[in-house]
Amino acid sequence: MDKRIGLQTVVFQQPPVILSHASIVGPKEGQGPLGHVFDKVLEDMYYGESTWEKAEQKVFLETMELALAKAELTSADIDYLLAGDLTNQIITANFTARSLAIPFIGLYGACSTMYESLALGAMLIDGGYARYVLVGASSHYATAERQFRYPTEQGVQRSMSAQRTVTGAGAIVLGYQGTGPRITHATIGKVIDFGQSDASDMGSAMAPAAAATLLQHLSDRQISPDCYSMIATGDLGKYGRELVVKLCEQQQVQLSSNYTDCGILIFDESQDTHAGGSGCGCSAVVTCGHLLPELEQGRLTSLLGIGTGALLSPCSSQQGETIPGIAHAVVIEAN
Amino acid sequence: MDKRIGLQTVVFQQPPVILSHASIVGPKEGQGPLGHVFDKVLEDMYYGESTWEKAEQKVFLETMELALAKAELTSADIDYLLAGDLTNQIITANFTARSLAIPFIGLYGACSTMYESLALGAMLIDGGYARYVLVGASSHYATAERQFRYPTEQGVQRSMSAQRTVTGAGAIVLGYQGTGPRITHATIGKVIDFGQSDASDMGSAMAPAAAATLLQHLSDRQISPDCYSMIATGDLGKYGRELVVKLCEQQQVQLSSNYTDCGILIFDESQDTHAGGSGCGCSAVVTCGHLLPELEQGRLTSLLGIGTGALLSPCSSQQGETIPGIAHAVVIEAN
Repeated sequence: MDKRIGLQTVVFQQPPVILSHASIVGPKEGQGPLGHVFDKVLEDMYYGESTWEKAEQKVFLETMELALAKAELTSADIDYLLAGDLTNQIITANFTARSLAIPFIGLYGACSTMYESLALGAMLIDGGYARYVLVGASSHYATAERQFRYPTEQGVQRSMSAQRTVTGAGAIVLGYQGTGPRITHATIGKVIDFGQSDASDMGSAMAPAAAATLLQHLSDRQISPDCYSMIATGDLGKYGRELVVKLCEQQQVQLSSNYTDCGILIFDESQDTHAGGSGCGCSAVVTCGHLLPELEQGRLTSLLGIGTGALLSPCSSQQGETIPGIAHAVVIEAN
Repeated sequence: MDKRIGLQTVVFQQPPVILSHASIVGPKEGQGPLGHVFDKVLEDMYYGESTWEKAEQKVFLETMELALAKAELTSADIDYLLAGDLTNQIITANFTARSLAIPFIGLYGACSTMYESLALGAMLIDGGYARYVLVGASSHYATAERQFRYPTEQGVQRSMSAQRTVTGAGAIVLGYQGTGPRITHATIGKVIDFGQSDASDMGSAMAPAAAATLLQHLSDRQISPDCYSMIATGDLGKYGRELVVKLCEQQQVQLSSNYTDCGILIFDESQDTHAGGSGCGCSAVVTCGHLLPELEQGRLTSLLGIGTGALLSPCSSQQGETIPGIAHAVVIEAN
């Protein structure tokens, strides 16, 4: 059966259910406006480990285990683990997969990974390849800064367009049946590059991809943005969100107050986080900690979540490349 | 419909067809025993570009375009591109996806990526989410060496257990109908770690994962290894292959002459490549250039291909971690 509608969207015949979700964040995220919604807030960035990378792995594993426990499942019940992160060779996800011993599909979609994993996970269940899938994404401020930009010890001053990588991980258990919000559609995005090359303004680099996926999704479903009670991009921050609104306007699509961005929601301007939050963990923890409970508790009836990723590396930037973006959208409807 | 059999294997109801395949390799691979089977052999490692990374991207894009042309399709016909490589943040795949403008699912499975992409691509078609999928993987000796080990200019002496990263890319067009070999089953592997920590002996680090996936696959299908006309692991090389044979023997499963490894096939011992070939490109080019034509021309009736990946990073090794492995298996049957 052909489940494609329009050019890039698929519709699920038996919409996979979000059985549980978990999120753990760092201290700074815990002090932000959403601080109270997460399952756990770290007291420091090392979390009892000797390196930030090991801390990130510990956080990711604990988040995954918490999601499993909430769903009253064990790793033996899960058919696939789909996960990724920002570290080179996605070691956070790899070592978490080693601990969990679930058949593992490693993903790299930069900060779009949470929604890449949700879209693929839903396809694997709806397609009959799995009954339960565990998906998730992770980032850590200190592991990302020293890998992508400067060692944090250096204290480099950040530009106002810069965003702060979220320390945190989100995990979701998807099931073929049960009670909970359901994933009804997914739109996988293309890589879009408007020629932006400033690694201190990733929001603007990703915004064209977010707008492209959003517009394609609306066109494929032949609906308008107000059909969703909320549209949330992943980590565009203040400037990226503005650019998405403008790019949609150019195509005669008006976004209104139902459009927000996880990177804007997670930090308060008083926290000196400039344009907002970013990183794989940003959309992961805001989705798991805030948006899904809004759906579960009836304050939202439908969500169009759009994970956004900047597909650069320090090497590509040093070799003069611009920064391509990607965005994957998933529709989640309240039960 | 539940398409799972056993614990980790899925069976396709409408087996996706391999419509075309392409492979381009570097000069050293062109001088090897399979040199005559590839679509193109580079004259040098730069391929007219200013950096090895840009050369790798050019090779990957050209391989993808060649596979499309052979299938008499354009990028607009393709529903998804599934690809990955070894560079940090998989920039080879990202920039190739930018050029092709196909909805893109970025993967990281280290050297198992070709088979990860084949397994997932087959699920997307058989599940009804796509009619055509383009999959592929790439590696480049010089980009991998300087990123994972030492700058090649340094001329570090390699141990006899070391393998040589293959310069090359492979791409396959999968379709929902047509003529060609068919993907009938897939087995997604778990991350397995036997505590090996020598980054100069990746074959031994990956062998336990290869054996685990192979044994699980045989158990899930309740068949013996001689049911396949060939079993080929991805890039275990000489020592890794020996270890797989031993590990299977311990479980009373005898592998015979129908078991080979792409890393052994691609180089000749006279080429000073020590334990054999490795890298995402290894299983990709041997599968596309050698194994698929063997199926198409009737010299093989069925292939169990097992992509193998070592999930380390320089950072994880420096922080004292051992090297986990992963292996994904796909069954391809002659038309």
